[in-house]
Amino acid sequence: MRAEILTIGDELCRGEIVDTNSSYLADKLWDLGITTRWMTSCTDDEPDMRTAFAQALGRADIILCSGGLGPTEDDLTVDVTSALAGVAPVVDETARDRMLARFAKVPAFLSTTGQERDNLLAIQLRQVRVPTGARVFKNPVGLAPGFEVTLQGIPVICLPGVPREIYGIYDAGLEARLAELREQGERGPIERIARQIYRVFGRGESQISQACRGLVDGVPGASIHYQVKFPETLVKLVVRDPSREVAAARLATLEAGLRERLAGVLYGTGQENLVEVVTRRLIEGGQTVATAESCTGGMIGELLTRMPGSSRAFQGGAIVYSNAEKTRQLGVQEVTLREHGAVSEAVVREMAAGAKARFAVDHAVAVSGIAGPDGGTPEKPVGTTWIAVASPGGVVTKLVQWPGQRDQNRTLAAWWALKLLGDAIQ
Amino acid sequence: MRAEILTIGDELCRGEIVDTNSSYLADKLWDLGITTRWMTSCTDDEPDMRTAFAQALGRADIILCSGGLGPTEDDLTVDVTSALAGVAPVVDETARDRMLARFAKVPAFLSTTGQERDNLLAIQLRQVRVPTGARVFKNPVGLAPGFEVTLQGIPVICLPGVPREIYGIYDAGLEARLAELREQGERGPIERIARQIYRVFGRGESQISQACRGLVDGVPGASIHYQVKFPETLVKLVVRDPSREVAAARLATLEAGLRERLAGVLYGTGQENLVEVVTRRLIEGGQTVATAESCTGGMIGELLTRMPGSSRAFQGGAIVYSNAEKTRQLGVQEVTLREHGAVSEAVVREMAAGAKARFAVDHAVAVSGIAGPDGGTPEKPVGTTWIAVASPGGVVTKLVQWPGQRDQNRTLAAWWALKLLGDAIQ
Repeated sequence: MRAEILTIGDELCRGEIVDTNSSYLADKLWDLGITTRWMTSCTDDEPDMRTAFAQALGRADIILCSGGLGPTEDDLTVDVTSALAGVAPVVDETARDRMLARFAKVPAFLSTTGQERDNLLAIQLRQVRVPTGARVFKNPVGLAPGFEVTLQGIPVICLPGVPREIYGIYDAGLEARLAELREQGERGPIERIARQIYRVFGRGESQISQACRGLVDGVPGASIHYQVKFPETLVKLVVRDPSREVAAARLATLEAGLRERLAGVLYGTGQENLVEVVTRRLIEGGQTVATAESCTGGMIGELLTRMPGSSRAFQGGAIVYSNAEKTRQLGVQEVTLREHGAVSEAVVREMAAGAKARFAVDHAVAVSGIAGPDGGTPEKPVGTTWIAVASPGGVVTKLVQWPGQRDQNRTLAAWWALKLLGDAIQ
Repeated sequence: MRAEILTIGDELCRGEIVDTNSSYLADKLWDLGITTRWMTSCTDDEPDMRTAFAQALGRADIILCSGGLGPTEDDLTVDVTSALAGVAPVVDETARDRMLARFAKVPAFLSTTGQERDNLLAIQLRQVRVPTGARVFKNPVGLAPGFEVTLQGIPVICLPGVPREIYGIYDAGLEARLAELREQGERGPIERIARQIYRVFGRGESQISQACRGLVDGVPGASIHYQVKFPETLVKLVVRDPSREVAAARLATLEAGLRERLAGVLYGTGQENLVEVVTRRLIEGGQTVATAESCTGGMIGELLTRMPGSSRAFQGGAIVYSNAEKTRQLGVQEVTLREHGAVSEAVVREMAAGAKARFAVDHAVAVSGIAGPDGGTPEKPVGTTWIAVASPGGVVTKLVQWPGQRDQNRTLAAWWALKLLGDAIQ
């Protein structure tokens, strides 16, 4: 089953926004066993939109379209798809009622009256229209509903352009519908899909693919894919088989092999990233943490406070960019700084130990490194970073070195600190 | 002049990576007065690539293509464009010599010999090929050069898929070539373009466009555009005229009007964002700064240490997530916390004053807020944030409130702190 994804909007073609909807939808379709062959973006210009639909209808088994569902005169997706379907646009009553209920809470709307209110409503009603007879997808986030029409026998699904509205519609009903369409569109026996995402930090994509070489060879219907989400890498295993049980069993066997090959760096599965895994473990374990940061400048603290509820684990941190602050805030001895340098195992040990004692926490993480582009020496080139984690069981230290740029080095340093913290609380 | 942008790669169509190249190129083209009408992505499949080129040749005056220039058998852009041009692919000697010079520094390559080395070289030589007779663009970042061929009278420019290689090629020669092509392709008199980007923080896009309403009305060849780069907004003014001087004069007049309408929130022009403006000003002014962060958890420190050389200004910070840490690290009085609450003007004043004294710096910024989604009250709803900046001239405070999500509230809080810091050092 072949898909084409259309994204519509002048702002896309002027390069004012990056189109993340196409990759979001392509990723979801791929997981459902639907192959995206084309992704096309065009302006809000009506003839171009018609051309885009015609083109897609000529080469795809299913079309997903995003954009052009807003309230303005530029938003033409409902009009164009209605015309292609030979029907009139019609207001979807459920979506209209939801919209009016929302407006009833907006003071600026409530203060309008008479003709002004009528004009406003007429404009806003544009975005709750769908082609007559369309299947409607509820939009739990925004106002414009999604919808599906059939053009030349091909399902065409239209969605708003706002990314989080697409995510909302997908989860609320579109995923189930796409799975259904895929089963209907399947030639031959229906394939069931078993799949899992494995999250890896601490090894590069090429090393990971090297380690996984041959894993899926000879396993019917199995494939493996890699997705770099810097600084981590996702490994996806997919097994297709007419039998759901067979697919699941093959995936389980592959997973066991994968875990063996990626021991020590595979830290989780699914949507939860390393930051979330570590923060959740701290909270669930009732353990507290503090940070002592030099080159990362506060990044570790920022990561550890991303999740709601992180205040139950995170107490605070010391950003000690200067040597004087390392001593004042954390009690690092001047002699240690002098003899070993700020980027050294001895200094991060004292930073971590100092933070653990002063913040009175279970765990303290410390980082000191040369982020670059300046400050490197032959002995300690740019990218040289020392990390320490002080825990009830003692202090663990690690030296890491990357050839990357400043921002990359800082991000890697912060994530490595979290990785070591995660290992310490396991 | 109408452009089509092609991006090629299986990984795009599987949704494994987000295509940022199309918007980068569309933005650059737009600035040069070239209008992108279509952006198309397809897989590495040769028939699909041929279809994509044929389609673009039928509707564009210029084609930019990225991807498919690597060393593997999947990389077919040179082969497909050569075939369409009716020429053979040929190794570009300059690019080959650069590649060999690079390899000469790689130990893994140097250790290969004989047949192994020959095989390796044969593979790598694929990526320094271009169609015979093509105009070659030097790639200062990576190995594969860009190139331009003429197909059916239309210039087709092919670039690698790695974003920073495209940026390198663009700056090193592609921009000049595109400007030249635009002049050649112009029907009627050549238009000169005067343009500027204005950076705005502290007001939303709709408020900004409201404030700028009518600014360009009646000014020949002038247009205004908005680009949200959360948390800031870019306003672009463009004036086209056959006379460079006339265009520049009109832009100057418009700029004066724009600065008046956006007084207090327009903080800079061009590529330098608020973080960079503030850090640069601190460094240039020989002034030092420290941070005292609650809800932002280290984000302000992280921002202030992004730029190389920031250690000359940034001394360190205190991340004081818990009340106990606000007192221990910054000397906030317990009675102040008890009587006013952690999110209050009184507390951020004491945080900023405490940080200024303890870190012995010229300026200290302090933030305390309710990032959400929990912790809000009717009096202090989620999004309520107090900011203080202590400077030689005294302490400035500000209350801000947003209805956004946790990550948005935190980012806005950090940027507002930088905005106030920037105002204080001006």
